Amino acid sequence: MSYDLSRFAINQITTPKWSMPEAIDGYARQGVHGIAVWRNFLEDYGVAQTRRELNAHDMWVPSLCTSEWLNISVTRNMSTAIDINRRLLDAAAEIGAGCLMMVVGGIPPDSKDIQGQRERVRDALLELLPHARQTGVKLGLEPLHPMYAGDRSLLNSLRVANDLCDELGEGAGVVADVYHCWWDPVFEQEIRRAGPARILSFHYCDWLVPTRNLRDRGMVGDGVIDIPRIKGWLDDIGYGGPFELEIFSELDWWTRPPEETVRVAIERCTPYVQTPSATGADK
Amino acid sequence: MSYDLSRFAINQITTPKWSMPEAIDGYARQGVHGIAVWRNFLEDYGVAQTRRELNAHDMWVPSLCTSEWLNISVTRNMSTAIDINRRLLDAAAEIGAGCLMMVVGGIPPDSKDIQGQRERVRDALLELLPHARQTGVKLGLEPLHPMYAGDRSLLNSLRVANDLCDELGEGAGVVADVYHCWWDPVFEQEIRRAGPARILSFHYCDWLVPTRNLRDRGMVGDGVIDIPRIKGWLDDIGYGGPFELEIFSELDWWTRPPEETVRVAIERCTPYVQTPSATGADK
Repeated sequence: MSYDLSRFAINQITTPKWSMPEAIDGYARQGVHGIAVWRNFLEDYGVAQTRRELNAHDMWVPSLCTSEWLNISVTRNMSTAIDINRRLLDAAAEIGAGCLMMVVGGIPPDSKDIQGQRERVRDALLELLPHARQTGVKLGLEPLHPMYAGDRSLLNSLRVANDLCDELGEGAGVVADVYHCWWDPVFEQEIRRAGPARILSFHYCDWLVPTRNLRDRGMVGDGVIDIPRIKGWLDDIGYGGPFELEIFSELDWWTRPPEETVRVAIERCTPYVQTPSATGADK
Repeated sequence: MSYDLSRFAINQITTPKWSMPEAIDGYARQGVHGIAVWRNFLEDYGVAQTRRELNAHDMWVPSLCTSEWLNISVTRNMSTAIDINRRLLDAAAEIGAGCLMMVVGGIPPDSKDIQGQRERVRDALLELLPHARQTGVKLGLEPLHPMYAGDRSLLNSLRVANDLCDELGEGAGVVADVYHCWWDPVFEQEIRRAGPARILSFHYCDWLVPTRNLRDRGMVGDGVIDIPRIKGWLDDIGYGGPFELEIFSELDWWTRPPEETVRVAIERCTPYVQTPSATGADK
């Protein structure tokens, strides 16, 4: 088997000490040409400037993170947030990102109606969809771990993301992250249901035991997630899209030199970002 | 509507500064006669002594917390852990507890096979079941929040707990906690599926935003969970069992004087522990 990094991207939240050009250069220098871009770094450096820097380093962008959240006061409509998301789709198109990561927000400040808020989010996604189709940037529905339901996202399982995609149709897809989904008894089943075309990107990191806070993700291999098995499911369905390493780690990786994080990321992820060879890979 | 506390219990982990006799006396003094008992306090004070103290204060016990965990090395069998759980069922019977809370443990130290471990847990529950039936103490299957799947429990949704109960039959039931299940899109559906007979106890607390660590539960009313709505589901199905307040709170409630915690608990929980009157309560 040949080892190549052509499907491997690092999500730039993994190296938050680096500015946009530092991250682009830092990843490319070690042979990683995929970078998932975060909005704050993009805004700091500028969209046009970022595009030039990406091109200069021969980089590709699986996704732009993240959408404007939709946990808007129930006394207000979502038009401002939807409009910001339209502009983010435009920016994503400009840097060639495959999708805009839809992190939909948690419970609104003035309501405890989780079902009602989930319906508002669905309606907002339907409203955003025509612009996504127009720009060619997909809405990347990423289920977040249920521990983020309060404040970050009410979309908490791949099953629900798949249900939403069924409803939205063309212009939407899912992004799955082992950290958010590893515990889910129907994770495999929902990966198979999604199939290779709907999965826009696939995220790696690991679940640490103990987990010390809600931003304490581990490096691939340091936790309890059976990543080889999950990679096997993706190979089985013929998934051919990106693999992203994304680590939120206040106490560990975010404190280290970014060069070290990139080096270890490559070491740990390389076995799990390969495309099986045509001979012998199919079961 | 009359306000009574006859269905209300406090889980003694909510007031960890108190020893067993202090908690029994402290709850009873404020009119709460239900206490969910924790194993470490029970062992410290002794089972027979605890039973006498409970009787002297006219207390009832919804549950004994918790079972011996089952995340045993895959190179060993579970016979020792199952045997400890048999002795815990005996202790639960001696103090009149309705159920033994089955917290089944996370990932074993030498495996990442979550599916395989879930099967080992099911087999262990099947092995324990005859003793539960014999003692009359039920196995209380409590789904824990998915954020505890790594270290505390691989049983993470009421759906899976209901599936397990279908398999186990007589001698098992479920215990649901708003903290663990509030985010689940099928929580209501699975409460209705369980029905009143299978729900052995129902736990209250609240989900705080922000949540600062994995032991940061809130007092009823301080978070984002729609407790009145959930109580409505329980009334709808005719649930007539216990309501327990259970708060793990390293940064707040565990640091306060226990008398204060009990006082505020009663103020906050009273509306949600009432049995609807026969007239006008049915929809």
